[in-house]
Amino acid sequence: MDYQKILNTIESEMNYRDVEGKVASYIPELAKVDPRKFGMHIYCGDKQHFCFGDSDENFSIQSIAKVFSLSMAMILMGEDLWKRVDVEPSGDPFNSLTQLEYEQGVPRNPFINAGALVISDILVAQLEDPKQELLDFVRKITGNPEIDFDKKIAASEKSTGYRNIALVNYMKALGNIKCEVEPIVDFYFNLCSLSMSCKELAQAFMIYANKGKILDTGEEILTPTSVKRINALMQTCGFYDEAGEFSFEVGLPGKSGVGGGIVAIHPDQYSVAVWSPILNHKGNSELGMKALERLTTLSGLSVF
Amino acid sequence: MDYQKILNTIESEMNYRDVEGKVASYIPELAKVDPRKFGMHIYCGDKQHFCFGDSDENFSIQSIAKVFSLSMAMILMGEDLWKRVDVEPSGDPFNSLTQLEYEQGVPRNPFINAGALVISDILVAQLEDPKQELLDFVRKITGNPEIDFDKKIAASEKSTGYRNIALVNYMKALGNIKCEVEPIVDFYFNLCSLSMSCKELAQAFMIYANKGKILDTGEEILTPTSVKRINALMQTCGFYDEAGEFSFEVGLPGKSGVGGGIVAIHPDQYSVAVWSPILNHKGNSELGMKALERLTTLSGLSVF
Amino acid sequence: MDYQKILNTIESEMNYRDVEGKVASYIPELAKVDPRKFGMHIYCGDKQHFCFGDSDENFSIQSIAKVFSLSMAMILMGEDLWKRVDVEPSGDPFNSLTQLEYEQGVPRNPFINAGALVISDILVAQLEDPKQELLDFVRKITGNPEIDFDKKIAASEKSTGYRNIALVNYMKALGNIKCEVEPIVDFYFNLCSLSMSCKELAQAFMIYANKGKILDTGEEILTPTSVKRINALMQTCGFYDEAGEFSFEVGLPGKSGVGGGIVAIHPDQYSVAVWSPILNHKGNSELGMKALERLTTLSGLSVF
Amino acid sequence: MDYQKILNTIESEMNYRDVEGKVASYIPELAKVDPRKFGMHIYCGDKQHFCFGDSDENFSIQSIAKVFSLSMAMILMGEDLWKRVDVEPSGDPFNSLTQLEYEQGVPRNPFINAGALVISDILVAQLEDPKQELLDFVRKITGNPEIDFDKKIAASEKSTGYRNIALVNYMKALGNIKCEVEPIVDFYFNLCSLSMSCKELAQAFMIYANKGKILDTGEEILTPTSVKRINALMQTCGFYDEAGEFSFEVGLPGKSGVGGGIVAIHPDQYSVAVWSPILNHKGNSELGMKALERLTTLSGLSVF
Repeated sequence: MDYQKILNTIESEMNYRDVEGKVASYIPELAKVDPRKFGMHIYCGDKQHFCFGDSDENFSIQSIAKVFSLSMAMILMGEDLWKRVDVEPSGDPFNSLTQLEYEQGVPRNPFINAGALVISDILVAQLEDPKQELLDFVRKITGNPEIDFDKKIAASEKSTGYRNIALVNYMKALGNIKCEVEPIVDFYFNLCSLSMSCKELAQAFMIYANKGKILDTGEEILTPTSVKRINALMQTCGFYDEAGEFSFEVGLPGKSGVGGGIVAIHPDQYSVAVWSPILNHKGNSELGMKALERLTTLSGLSVF
Repeated sequence: MDYQKILNTIESEMNYRDVEGKVASYIPELAKVDPRKFGMHIYCGDKQHFCFGDSDENFSIQSIAKVFSLSMAMILMGEDLWKRVDVEPSGDPFNSLTQLEYEQGVPRNPFINAGALVISDILVAQLEDPKQELLDFVRKITGNPEIDFDKKIAASEKSTGYRNIALVNYMKALGNIKCEVEPIVDFYFNLCSLSMSCKELAQAFMIYANKGKILDTGEEILTPTSVKRINALMQTCGFYDEAGEFSFEVGLPGKSGVGGGIVAIHPDQYSVAVWSPILNHKGNSELGMKALERLTTLSGLSVF
Repeated sequence: MDYQKILNTIESEMNYRDVEGKVASYIPELAKVDPRKFGMHIYCGDKQHFCFGDSDENFSIQSIAKVFSLSMAMILMGEDLWKRVDVEPSGDPFNSLTQLEYEQGVPRNPFINAGALVISDILVAQLEDPKQELLDFVRKITGNPEIDFDKKIAASEKSTGYRNIALVNYMKALGNIKCEVEPIVDFYFNLCSLSMSCKELAQAFMIYANKGKILDTGEEILTPTSVKRINALMQTCGFYDEAGEFSFEVGLPGKSGVGGGIVAIHPDQYSVAVWSPILNHKGNSELGMKALERLTTLSGLSVF
Repeated sequence: MDYQKILNTIESEMNYRDVEGKVASYIPELAKVDPRKFGMHIYCGDKQHFCFGDSDENFSIQSIAKVFSLSMAMILMGEDLWKRVDVEPSGDPFNSLTQLEYEQGVPRNPFINAGALVISDILVAQLEDPKQELLDFVRKITGNPEIDFDKKIAASEKSTGYRNIALVNYMKALGNIKCEVEPIVDFYFNLCSLSMSCKELAQAFMIYANKGKILDTGEEILTPTSVKRINALMQTCGFYDEAGEFSFEVGLPGKSGVGGGIVAIHPDQYSVAVWSPILNHKGNSELGMKALERLTTLSGLSVF
């Protein structure tokens, strides 16, 4: 498969001027991003790399990082994790608080905010230095020791993150949070502030396309069963309220973030990351969604 | 792949005595079914058939039939259909009525009851004799002219179907139902009463594994794009509140019914149907779920 | 107390041109009403009558009639009635369907639509000819044998009443409706179509200001305890989502209808009815609310 | 009216052994209270006092204190207050968080927790030393300079008050909280910890029965309009999810607390406080409700 040709086609077809959405603006730091940024990087199972545009430039990966914290919690807890968080799509963002009450504080899945906060609680409870160990984990699977938090982004999130603090307190009232509120949200806001490039994301997510092993070293980070579970979760819950649409258009497990990044994997074939900061009304990158749809269409490798 | 050996293994491993659920009992006719029934049928892209147990015995396919009515509506309306019904997982069965109000009467997807009722409204509005045309459609794709409704089941549903009648009236108040209530629910209850065997279901669903074409005749019933859409919907919304779990355990697009049937497809490979009437607490066949999990594990052909 | 002087003051102060709301338009028949209509009638415990304006003209009393059907159900069932319907304010119109599900089909109070439909079910189940017996009841307490339904209004309601039909079916699914749907909604739509004048309403409601007895004849229609219960319900639940505001502004038990009528009672003193068809955004007559506020302020007889 | 004779009758009729409820136990300090405690105190407009039992013993007044903070906020803000909090009954305790989202963070009324927290925010924002000024206010209207917080109760609430902290953060996210979270909840938990006797409560609440004036000194604390508003709010919203029942049984404006206290007022006649710690399933004092019902029945002075 000539992936470079496909990427070149995608780059030539797409233009940020054709999209109507807006850059995320709920925190000032994210609103500063240049809407013209556009990059894409494919990392193949045969270790080849293909890319275009701003694929080497760092951006705020936001919710994409929830896949990393989930992976760490699965390594620590295995299947016991699912007593604390469910594995089903959420459907209705509006009702997340009501839903928590029905279900005794157990969030629908690890990718909605409530679920990622429970995962954060687990890591804060079990790890000596959770932020450092998160960095260690991400640096290891990416093969880049310089990946770091964006302190400005983390501080900006924290100063306006009342809804997330409400969620943690509410789940604590319902008995599904063990630690103090402050270290949990501190970890969470740092997690979401991770700054990475498309290339680094593609490298990091190769473990989910490679049955849990780092491609370069062969070291097993996650069991094949854990990888299957994470991929199934990305497939059904990875795109806010647009998982069904993504499943149809792209047909690959993936995860998006409000920083405009999307990462997806084709098991045994490749991992791919794309970045364009303009979001559609459901909070996913408009050009990113289209670029991935073109990738699976042009390569003819969709799941369905 | 020696599918018959895999099926034999599954049959020998599983026993209805090991499961704790119950046969559906909300209508008397369904409660009469023998809980010991168990059958499975695989229909391959190379036209081979494999099966075990009660795979030739008819049962009430219930919600599985929603895939047929959806297919007919897509043929009639194409992409315009998605103005009347959305394509995202529902998440919260409890709130379905509230959700309808938020979203102006547009159901989350065509497989929840509200969505299937809108699809019924569309067919009743556009077809001269919707029940006969439904039978014609199902008989054609199955290759069996004797498939029919189970009139006792349909009557039984109708006599207790107040919740569905409430849904239709509510959506009519919100402007998303065009026809009279009575013919819509008459069509809907007949649709759910369709009586088919595992073998017939596997034959019928082959069009979704074969890019929309009947395998025997090559006739195109649905466009490849429509098939992709339907498969994506089955993947994310086909199992009530257990789509995430099925996606992990089985990893194939599929659809279940409270009669205890489940059908799934592996694109370009096979369609498969399984039947065991004992349901888990989420309303899906317990042995059916396990049998399909074993099938994808033993064949090594899972999606993820 | 010189009530005529107070009424004259109110009439001179108020003008339909000063109000911003609109006449109810959800059914064509109601939309035809002249927005300039304005009348008020006080009926005192000493049998004196005071009035102004269009107080002798009939209008559609709509939800005010729910007080009559509630009274009939209390006569038939006594305190057992409260197993079928609760006595607490509803709070959230939006959630009425969700609320029904939480509370197993038991509506919050007899004045929300769901509650009035349960009351209708009770009357249809227990009375030979419920519509005729309702007319008999209202004619008797009013002392006017010519009060009747407005058949055009009833037909108009019925042709668009899908939300109410949905409610009945939903409660039937939850086990709190005994009769068939059709006679219940037929009774309900006729009930709401009752056509009366301010004078007739003031006469009819005198039983609630007179401990359950018809003032002219002394005949006891309701026990003092039943009257206390009905008055408490009017005080806390009589004004859709504006019961708190009415309780503050007027401080009397009362009931409003979307036809623009409001009736209120001051125990042992008087009953009063006012009519002006222009509604505020919560569905209560704007001038009616103001007129009653002026009445209690000018007479100095507020409850608090 | 021989109130002492009525009180004696009530005391002789009632027995804590006849009630089935339980003492509040959600914080350890409240669970320690002796369930046999029972006292009642009436303070009349003619300055007479009547009482029985433990009417001079202090207890935790809990939510009753919300009437004091509301009064202070009305003095500071007048009618502008109603832009921050509504005046309607809440209906559904379950949905309070959902309701906040519908209504943009504006709580239904000042007596539900969310509303009392907004009132706390207002006082913290506008007062130099809000806790001291609260004490000053309560001491003044009661005529007792020794009324104080119960520090153990306040600390106990704070250590488990995650749900209230969640509410404040959530409303801050929705824009209806101005101050920092910590001083708001510190004020709120101290407010609820106020320790007073039935006698002191009856004295304090006399201003609401006396058109806003302290009976002894004649000093006007609240305008008559503010008092009318507060009384209307107590009538429709003062008893959690039992306002309708209390309105029927007692027919007076009042406010209860989970410490087992209830206070009520009969305008121009008397204020009354009763205390018995055993709560019914809706969180109101069982004996307290019955005692007040007997009081209005025996005195024949019910509102309706």
